[in-house]
Amino acid sequence: MDQLFSYQALSEFSFNIFKSIGCSEDNAAVATKVLLSADLRGVDSHGIARLSGYVRLWEAGRIKANPTIAITHETPSTAVIDGDKGLGLVVAPAAMEVAISKARNVGTGWVSVKNSNHFGIAGYHAMLALEGDMIGIAMTNASALVAPTFSRERLLGTNPIAVAIPAGTEPAFVADFATTTAANGKLEILQRKNMATPAGWVQTKDGDPSLDANELKSGGALLPLGGDKEHGSHKGYMLGSIVDIFSAVLSGANYGPWVPPFPAYVPMPENLPGEGIGHFFGVMRIDAFRPAEDFKLHMDKWIQRFRSAQTVEGYKSVIIPGEPEREMEAQRLGEGIPLLPAVVKDLEILAERFKVKF
Amino acid sequence: MDQLFSYQALSEFSFNIFKSIGCSEDNAAVATKVLLSADLRGVDSHGIARLSGYVRLWEAGRIKANPTIAITHETPSTAVIDGDKGLGLVVAPAAMEVAISKARNVGTGWVSVKNSNHFGIAGYHAMLALEGDMIGIAMTNASALVAPTFSRERLLGTNPIAVAIPAGTEPAFVADFATTTAANGKLEILQRKNMATPAGWVQTKDGDPSLDANELKSGGALLPLGGDKEHGSHKGYMLGSIVDIFSAVLSGANYGPWVPPFPAYVPMPENLPGEGIGHFFGVMRIDAFRPAEDFKLHMDKWIQRFRSAQTVEGYKSVIIPGEPEREMEAQRLGEGIPLLPAVVKDLEILAERFKVKF
Repeated sequence: MDQLFSYQALSEFSFNIFKSIGCSEDNAAVATKVLLSADLRGVDSHGIARLSGYVRLWEAGRIKANPTIAITHETPSTAVIDGDKGLGLVVAPAAMEVAISKARNVGTGWVSVKNSNHFGIAGYHAMLALEGDMIGIAMTNASALVAPTFSRERLLGTNPIAVAIPAGTEPAFVADFATTTAANGKLEILQRKNMATPAGWVQTKDGDPSLDANELKSGGALLPLGGDKEHGSHKGYMLGSIVDIFSAVLSGANYGPWVPPFPAYVPMPENLPGEGIGHFFGVMRIDAFRPAEDFKLHMDKWIQRFRSAQTVEGYKSVIIPGEPEREMEAQRLGEGIPLLPAVVKDLEILAERFKVKF
Repeated sequence: MDQLFSYQALSEFSFNIFKSIGCSEDNAAVATKVLLSADLRGVDSHGIARLSGYVRLWEAGRIKANPTIAITHETPSTAVIDGDKGLGLVVAPAAMEVAISKARNVGTGWVSVKNSNHFGIAGYHAMLALEGDMIGIAMTNASALVAPTFSRERLLGTNPIAVAIPAGTEPAFVADFATTTAANGKLEILQRKNMATPAGWVQTKDGDPSLDANELKSGGALLPLGGDKEHGSHKGYMLGSIVDIFSAVLSGANYGPWVPPFPAYVPMPENLPGEGIGHFFGVMRIDAFRPAEDFKLHMDKWIQRFRSAQTVEGYKSVIIPGEPEREMEAQRLGEGIPLLPAVVKDLEILAERFKVKF
C-alpha cells in the first residue's frame, strides 16, 4: 500500500518546496537534509510527512523563510540564540554550530534557543557533534500533549532528548527519545490501524487510564515515561520538565501549556510568556576530558560488552542505541523510502500548488 | 517500632565515626553533612543506614579516609578529577566546587570523576549550585543491578540523575531519581514487609517478569525506567547508559558490569577497565543565559502553573520536583529522624567498636 520513493527524489522535491516559500538555497538545503534524515532513520512522523505542516505555518505568518538568527547573550561556553521565527530545521543546526565552536574554544558549548519552531528529529542535531570527536546533546520543548503525574491537564510536550557519543571502530551511540511512554508518532500508527494502545500510554480527560489511541482528540493526554506513579511516571515528568526549562525558561521561549502548537489550525495559547518554541543544545569535546583515542577504545569495549550480553529468550541481542536507525537508513538509502497514500496525496497537493515536479 | 533520633545526635555520631576511621575534621564534617542529608530528605537507604557499609569498605582497603583529590586534566569549562579512592561523600562536593568555579569563569563547568566511591544522594550535590544562582547537575554510576532491555545480565547500576534549578519566591526545582522503574531502596522496603512488587520493577535471572521483591538475590535484575519495551524500557536503559558513559567512560572509571559493588563482602569484578566508580557533575550559571531575575520570575510562573493544574480525582495537586523532600526535611529537623531497629543495632555495634558515644 505504501509507495517507495528514492531519497534523491524526495530531497529534490522538499528542497524545491522550501525554495517556493522563499527559503534561500542554503536554508532550503539544510531544512531538507534535516527533514529527510527523519525519513531515513525511520521516524516517519517527523519527516516529509510534516512538509505541508511547515508550509501552513509559513502561510499563517508563524515561520520566516529566511530568519536573522542571532546570538543575544553569550559567555565563553554559553549562548542564547533568537531564532527569529525561523524553521527549527534551520535554526537548530545554526545553534549547534555555535555550541561546537564554543566547545572547540573552551571544552564545551551550551546553547538555549528561543523564538524557533519544530526542529525535526533531535538525533540529527546531536549527531552534528560526532565528526569533531565531540558528544552532542539536543532537546526541544513542544506543544502540550502530556499530563504530569496526578494532572488532568496537558502541560508538557513529548520533549525529546538526544545524546550522540562517538566510538572507535564501533558506530556511534545515539540515543533519541521522547520523555513519554510512547511518542505521539506511535500513537498515530495505532490510530491508523484502529488498534488499542498498551496500558500506560494515555489517559482520559479526567485522568483515568485508557487504551484508546484516539484519546487525545477528546481531551485526554499522553503519559510521561513510566505511565503511572507506581511505575515511575514522576521520573518521566521530571525529565520532560527539565527539557522544558532548559529549552525555554533559560532562553525566553514559551514553556509548559504556552508552547505554540505545530498544526497551524490549532489556535495559539493566550498571554504567551515567551517567544516561539525553545531548544537546548550541548556539545562536549572528548579531549576536554581525556584523549579521544582512549575514550573511543573504552566506548568500543562498552558497546561490545552490552551487545554481547546474554539475552532473554526470543531476542537476538541487546540493542545499542542508534543501531536500528542506522540499519534503517542503510536500507532506505538503498531500497527507497515508503510513504503512506495520505502523505503522497499531501505532497501531490503541494506539488500542484507550487508548480513543483513530484 | 522505629526509634527517633535528633539530626544533631546522628550528626555527631557520624562525624565521630568518620574521624575514627582517620578522616580529617573537614572530611568527617563534609561526609556527615552529605550522608545525613539523605536521612533528612527521606532517602533512608542512602543515609546513616550505610555508615557501617562505608566503614567496611575502609577496612577492605577500598576507601581512603583522606584522599588527595586532584584534577588530572582540564580546559576552561571541564575537568577530570581523580578521587584517589576517597569517600564519594567527600570527593563529590570537591568536584562540584571545581564545576562551580569554572561556571563562574566561563559560564558552565563540567567535571567527570574517576576512582571514587558511593557519593550519597545525587540531589545534595546538584543543590550546591543553587546558592550562586546556578543550575546544578549530578549523576553517578553504581554496581550493576539493572538488566538493559532484552538482557538477562545485569549491566547497569540504578544510575541516578539529579538536576537542581533555582527559582525566585518559590523553592528550587530539585529532581533526583534513579533511572530504573524503582530505586533499590524501594525494593528493600518491600522485602522487609514481605510484599510483592508492582509489575515492571524486576525480572528473574532468565529475564521473565516477576513480582518477587527478593528476585535480585537469585540472580534477577531491576528493570530500567519503563519496565518493558512496550512501556519504554529502552528509554530508561538509554538514560542509565548515558549516566554510565558520562561518569566513567569520560573519566576513566569502571563502567557497566565492572563497577565495584558497595557491600565490601561482594567480590570485586575481574579485569577492571578503569579506576573506582565514576560521577559526572555540571553547573550552569543562569546569567550566562539571561539575567537571573528574569529567569527566576519565569521559574516561579512555571512552578505555580504546574502546581495549580487541575488534578486527577483523589490527588490534591501536581507535585513540583523537590517538594516532598523539602517537607520531609522540615519535619525531620523538627521531630527527629526515624531509624529501623536493624539500623540502630548496626550503629550500636559501630559505637561499641570505636568507643564512640551513641
